[in-house]
Amino acid sequence: MSIETQITEMAQAGKRASRRVAALDTAEKNQILEAIADGLERSTAEIIEANAKDLAAAEENGLSSAMIDRLTLDDGRVKAIADAVRQIVKLDDPVGAVIDEFTGAQGIEIRKVRSPIGVIGIIFESRPNVTVDAAVLCLKSGNATILRGGREAIHSNTALAKVINESGCAAGLPENAIQLIPFTDRAAVPALCQADESVDLIIPRGGRGLIEAVISCSRVPVIKHLDGICHVYVAASADPEMAKSIALNAKVQRPGVCNAMETLLVDRGSADQLPGIAAALHAAGVELRVDPEAADAIGDAAPTVAATEDDWHTEYLDLVLSVKVVDGVDAAIDHINHYGSGHSDGIVSGDAGEVKLFLAGVDSSTVYHNASTRFTDGEMFGFGAEIGISTDKLHARGPMALPELTTYKYEVHGTGQVRG
Amino acid sequence: MSIETQITEMAQAGKRASRRVAALDTAEKNQILEAIADGLERSTAEIIEANAKDLAAAEENGLSSAMIDRLTLDDGRVKAIADAVRQIVKLDDPVGAVIDEFTGAQGIEIRKVRSPIGVIGIIFESRPNVTVDAAVLCLKSGNATILRGGREAIHSNTALAKVINESGCAAGLPENAIQLIPFTDRAAVPALCQADESVDLIIPRGGRGLIEAVISCSRVPVIKHLDGICHVYVAASADPEMAKSIALNAKVQRPGVCNAMETLLVDRGSADQLPGIAAALHAAGVELRVDPEAADAIGDAAPTVAATEDDWHTEYLDLVLSVKVVDGVDAAIDHINHYGSGHSDGIVSGDAGEVKLFLAGVDSSTVYHNASTRFTDGEMFGFGAEIGISTDKLHARGPMALPELTTYKYEVHGTGQVRG
Repeated sequence: MSIETQITEMAQAGKRASRRVAALDTAEKNQILEAIADGLERSTAEIIEANAKDLAAAEENGLSSAMIDRLTLDDGRVKAIADAVRQIVKLDDPVGAVIDEFTGAQGIEIRKVRSPIGVIGIIFESRPNVTVDAAVLCLKSGNATILRGGREAIHSNTALAKVINESGCAAGLPENAIQLIPFTDRAAVPALCQADESVDLIIPRGGRGLIEAVISCSRVPVIKHLDGICHVYVAASADPEMAKSIALNAKVQRPGVCNAMETLLVDRGSADQLPGIAAALHAAGVELRVDPEAADAIGDAAPTVAATEDDWHTEYLDLVLSVKVVDGVDAAIDHINHYGSGHSDGIVSGDAGEVKLFLAGVDSSTVYHNASTRFTDGEMFGFGAEIGISTDKLHARGPMALPELTTYKYEVHGTGQVRG
Repeated sequence: MSIETQITEMAQAGKRASRRVAALDTAEKNQILEAIADGLERSTAEIIEANAKDLAAAEENGLSSAMIDRLTLDDGRVKAIADAVRQIVKLDDPVGAVIDEFTGAQGIEIRKVRSPIGVIGIIFESRPNVTVDAAVLCLKSGNATILRGGREAIHSNTALAKVINESGCAAGLPENAIQLIPFTDRAAVPALCQADESVDLIIPRGGRGLIEAVISCSRVPVIKHLDGICHVYVAASADPEMAKSIALNAKVQRPGVCNAMETLLVDRGSADQLPGIAAALHAAGVELRVDPEAADAIGDAAPTVAATEDDWHTEYLDLVLSVKVVDGVDAAIDHINHYGSGHSDGIVSGDAGEVKLFLAGVDSSTVYHNASTRFTDGEMFGFGAEIGISTDKLHARGPMALPELTTYKYEVHGTGQVRG
């Protein structure tokens, strides 16, 4: 059987299963989630044994220590995965929530109601915890999933999917509601992305290569996270201590994540704040790549390197920062909309009019006034859990939690109305 | 310059313009809309003259009389297009509306605010009124548009776009906010669908061939209307007069539209209602394609033809109806989810439990209880105007009005919070 045929059959099985998942009530879904969490803990040894095979292969293939760390499961990490499943139990079930209610022509009563999307394909790289996270978030929101993990984690993922299905199905999880693609052939990705008869949404989680492989071939709608080229703009009216504190936090608190700042923009009118900010960043180990005006303003306060055009486009994910002096809020907005990635961008300012312009003008998922960009996160927003952060604008933007894994339908109640 | 380069440049110009459109306030947008409406009326002669060229070509190319009718503009139709623009003035501006407001970690104040999508590509077939409708709906929702009409209407569309831009720009419409692709080369469609650096959404409006051409190549998210294979299910508890009235209305009131019924499902327990319904449909000129059990139930009440498997999949858009007897609400739901198109499906029933099952179980944009499927329409829902009806599940489902032409962003207000 060809890869395409196998994937098509999985997709069709997923679609049939999705009807049964959609029909589960909240208590039934929570019972399944509890059973999956218990099953994961009970099967820790089995999961770690499978993980060891992936780790041995990773060593053999010379994977970086960072990648090996991401791949590694131990008692504590399996327990954390199980606990994360139990967290999902506590979250509100989005399915059935009434979003809006109104009366249409001839008195028909219309209710806009949240409903499951159907079948969601999750394509991800090496972290095996995503296998469980993604599956249970989709389950709680009433969807079936087809999971495609990285080849480096195939043994771990297979073991996790087996435990999810064995413990879940014993507690009422419909068969094929959570499917893992059991082979690592590359052709599985385009096959899944073209199964638009059965698959309703693809969420790719990974680097640019993976995202490109998905969007270049997908007939199924895709919600993606591309880059996090985040900016902080220090306006002339910014409180200097606040500006320094936010810039420092946004860059160094965790430089390897998508909501970390990559470019600092400083208004010409607050260029005198730059030496202090630059010195603090330098002291925290940050390399500064600056435009000529920023270099002048920083002077001897910290060493700098001349920025190239590429720097403004770059997501460093490291202790490196581009710094530029701009002429006012409009120039800051233009820079961000041109070079940014639509993720998270902030202004530090004490001027309400300028803040309003910035928040409306910057075309990003999350725009900040006097707070660090590092807050773009489902947990920080109080969503309890997130499946990712969308840098797209359609359907879901910013942190994606359970409601973003649903669609809606209109339920119309009549008393025999016909159209005249 | 190649087609691809021309389209890329239009897309980039559209993106730049979209920032300026997004910054217009409601009064400014309404003033532009009034100017466009006035301009269209003032230029009626010029528009009709351009339309005459399209009509002459259409006659020469032997287009059907239905297609020629759709293409034709006269004084009354131009007036109707201008009046439709004035209707948009009256609608609420969705931009800036606060969808949700909550407090996140460390007291950050988060507001989820509607904002424009950016650049919307509209690809449509021969009706020239779509040129104006689509452009002004996108404008009111703060978006720039790139319009690609059918080759049959190129002269009409060019004249309309010229009037929109001349009258609009004089009243403050940003340059390139509304662009019509000025040539009919087929390569323009894939070029537009691949310009994902600048174009945020593609809405194709037309037949299956057009939709397929778009989804097979698009890197840009697409919201589409595929088929309208709508069902009415008559349950055992249905009121017979209501069932007959709804079936008749859903089929014959306007058979050529997407929300007309194509398949009637009747519960075995109400098969005795079939002769009356069938006779009424036959009297209205409807050809009945039936399964064996429906044939038996109808008997001599009306002539019937045996349905083939294809019939259950067919959107007739004509006075033809498939009829099938099913075993209860679960069988009805299964049939609809298998053969339907996710558009509009209804149940006629007096049993609340059964209604609940049907409304939750049928995976369609709009599900009806005791009302005709013909109500799926932006106007009937009270939306004032619609850009189309989505049979997709992502972002927008069912009638798409102004709010569905927006996205959202999170505006976060802090007092210097940083992440710990």
